[in-house]
Amino acid sequence: MDNRPIGIFDSGVGGLTVYKEIKSKFPNEDFIYLGDTKRFPYGSKTKENIIEISKNCINYLISQNVKLIIIACGTATSQALNELKEIYEIPIIGIIEPTAKYIRDKQLKNIGVIATRGTINSNSWEINIKQESPDANVYNKACPLLASMVEEGWTNNAIARLAINEYLEGFTDIENLDSLVLGCTHYPLFTDLIRDVLPNIDIINTGKVLANSLDTMFDRTDKEIEGYTTFCLTDIESNFQHLARNILKQDIQINLVNI
Amino acid sequence: MDNRPIGIFDSGVGGLTVYKEIKSKFPNEDFIYLGDTKRFPYGSKTKENIIEISKNCINYLISQNVKLIIIACGTATSQALNELKEIYEIPIIGIIEPTAKYIRDKQLKNIGVIATRGTINSNSWEINIKQESPDANVYNKACPLLASMVEEGWTNNAIARLAINEYLEGFTDIENLDSLVLGCTHYPLFTDLIRDVLPNIDIINTGKVLANSLDTMFDRTDKEIEGYTTFCLTDIESNFQHLARNILKQDIQINLVNI
Repeated sequence: MDNRPIGIFDSGVGGLTVYKEIKSKFPNEDFIYLGDTKRFPYGSKTKENIIEISKNCINYLISQNVKLIIIACGTATSQALNELKEIYEIPIIGIIEPTAKYIRDKQLKNIGVIATRGTINSNSWEINIKQESPDANVYNKACPLLASMVEEGWTNNAIARLAINEYLEGFTDIENLDSLVLGCTHYPLFTDLIRDVLPNIDIINTGKVLANSLDTMFDRTDKEIEGYTTFCLTDIESNFQHLARNILKQDIQINLVNI
Repeated sequence: MDNRPIGIFDSGVGGLTVYKEIKSKFPNEDFIYLGDTKRFPYGSKTKENIIEISKNCINYLISQNVKLIIIACGTATSQALNELKEIYEIPIIGIIEPTAKYIRDKQLKNIGVIATRGTINSNSWEINIKQESPDANVYNKACPLLASMVEEGWTNNAIARLAINEYLEGFTDIENLDSLVLGCTHYPLFTDLIRDVLPNIDIINTGKVLANSLDTMFDRTDKEIEGYTTFCLTDIESNFQHLARNILKQDIQINLVNI
């Protein structure tokens, strides 16, 4: 039994959708959530830059004595995970691999992927999905504004609806589309709007898939008390508390860390 | 006569609206335009952080032997200009002071200001406007998503229209509103949409006002050849070229600088 906390990082508030799923499966674990709001958004940055800022986050989490690191960010997973795994000994898990395995297990064939521009340009989703399911067809679409719309709190208004319609337009014509991967951890907040445009497909929340995959990786601890979570931000973000309340349905206390 | 170039910086493409106005008034000048795309957007960062990254930009421009620095960014002007002026000997001009003087000269009384969250929270516009026009009423509104919408190229579609309507809603009820300051240099791209919501007021393009104020500050050089502009970015931004073409009506060549 390893009582050290689990470290999770993201560029902002999006990773809370991943944290929420993991916390709900492992309520006794302690967590340190790091939102790198100082460098938000990661989506339009170069690979080299994202590796650098991810190392920054990981070094901080290691300094806090975590036992495992979850990259709760599509961009950092797609651009930096392979390189980070070579540098660090601590286990690091991103959001892509568990979902690629889920797609294989469910035998999905025609998969849409929406994500930031950096993630889409890296082609990581297509590479990882085809590694597990060589016959799959993958349809990619970059949606650069959606993460910022979440940070603004616009997830269910007329503007969000129009933006979702605009970004998903190309998917409605794809025959036999069976699933849409939410390749950025901010996007689960748009699930209802997405379902209105694409009603009959599997909308894949990568955080939920990741949380389910963890079941087989480490045993739940047997502590009787509820685990404690520390929330850290690298810059003040006035909307974070409000958005966190929307996602987690609870108030949180934020620590500012200077990294 | 000082033939060194004029340095201009912004967090991204927005400052091109300022560059365009200055270039049009001073076609013989050389320019170095630095778009700090690696750290875009500035709007949600802390004051300390913005001072730091502004120093970074200014140091680079000074290393390129500029004679004058224009901060073509509302956020950096509002959060960092005063501190930067104390550090550097080179003249540094931001977008707020010239506009505050313009408002005084035009005897405007009821002034709306739209800008990023950081700029609005700093209250710099209100302070500077009231310094020149103590009786003015200033109405502020943070519009955090607009700069990102420009970077996405959404400046004249249905989504942009809805966002503008949403953000400007409070201004339509203000009696005798005579002007609206576009307090972020990205916003002139929304001028047509803004005019549809607020048709009978002075929509103030701070870049134009700044360019006009420069007339009294240094004489036009007498070179017969057209000035040359070097465009630098701190990170690859695939949309920059496209957006620059929209703003400047010309193709540009981009140099990547690692700062």
